[in-house]
Amino acid sequence: MLLCDIGNTSYHFLKDEQDFKEDALSFNPSSIKERVFYICVNPHVKTALKELQNWIDLSLHVDMSKYYETMGIDRAVACEAISDGIIIDAGSAVTVDVVNNKKYEGGFIYPGIKAMHETYKNISSALDYSFNFECDLDIMPKNSQDSISYGYLKTFYSEVMSHNKKIFLTGGDAKKFAKIFPDAKIDDKLIFNSMKKIIKKADLC
Amino acid sequence: MLLCDIGNTSYHFLKDEQDFKEDALSFNPSSIKERVFYICVNPHVKTALKELQNWIDLSLHVDMSKYYETMGIDRAVACEAISDGIIIDAGSAVTVDVVNNKKYEGGFIYPGIKAMHETYKNISSALDYSFNFECDLDIMPKNSQDSISYGYLKTFYSEVMSHNKKIFLTGGDAKKFAKIFPDAKIDDKLIFNSMKKIIKKADLC
Repeated sequence: MLLCDIGNTSYHFLKDEQDFKEDALSFNPSSIKERVFYICVNPHVKTALKELQNWIDLSLHVDMSKYYETMGIDRAVACEAISDGIIIDAGSAVTVDVVNNKKYEGGFIYPGIKAMHETYKNISSALDYSFNFECDLDIMPKNSQDSISYGYLKTFYSEVMSHNKKIFLTGGDAKKFAKIFPDAKIDDKLIFNSMKKIIKKADLC
Repeated sequence: MLLCDIGNTSYHFLKDEQDFKEDALSFNPSSIKERVFYICVNPHVKTALKELQNWIDLSLHVDMSKYYETMGIDRAVACEAISDGIIIDAGSAVTVDVVNNKKYEGGFIYPGIKAMHETYKNISSALDYSFNFECDLDIMPKNSQDSISYGYLKTFYSEVMSHNKKIFLTGGDAKKFAKIFPDAKIDDKLIFNSMKKIIKKADLC
């Protein structure tokens, strides 16, 4: 079975237990002839896939009335995977969603590491540092690298922790964020496993 | 007396009690013939001003040993203005600095409104919303505009409030941030007033 979770920057495939990525701008989806079960938040790719009969859109099998209309399907699918907790999906955007006893409570969107690094760099060349995930978030910084690291990470950390829920970390940068959330459960396959459940429930395969 | 606080995007002048701005890229500082007392965080402008004898660098009269080497001079000058509190200077970057009984405790840097709006927009056209400063930060959002507004503002709000200090708001976007910090003291002239005190103390004028 071939699964694909398409984000803003890449196609993320799972073939059996092996995952691989293709660039969202350059990959040609019609090069794949077998059946692909997919979800997609990328508006350009979404339009292209509508033409391809072997690409099967799993969003049609998710009850979106539990969520909200313009919510990314990847977030809804991730929420379907758990019954209680807070999910951090750290990709080009970092999405955070709260599920309380199977009920969706809402969520928010924070910039991903690469996007936020660009942001600081574009404000001033004096802020062109990579983020220090080892930065002590209990102490107000007194150097430039930690000042932006704290600005990006401590603000985010405080908000996530305030919900007092079990944390699930997924997405390409999950391991980096695990440094500031050491008690989080890292689940690289959270979305793929949820997609498999949806396929099974809808009897698609 | 002519004062100038030069940031990453503009020259901010104060002539008597009137302030005005000039674009950092296009303004020619040698067009001013009178004496200007300035502080500057813009690396390009800093180099240009070294050649001009009528531009007097106030950073030479600030005891930077209280702060840290690469800290923007505007932040140090703002801290000199208060004896206790947390200063938010909301410009192209939002700097946050804590002063505890005249001692500098450290600070952090967060992206400004314009920079962060660009960040979300560049991640995905689906996130191209202006921030909703009226967004209820006590409720997890269930729509796209509030999801990014909460991501930008609630994370920042939680961190600032955790310090439990009197908040001083300055910078071009001070009034917007006042919507989420209704008890803050807005002081548009915080840095200029601090510059005047430094001039007086150093007997420069």
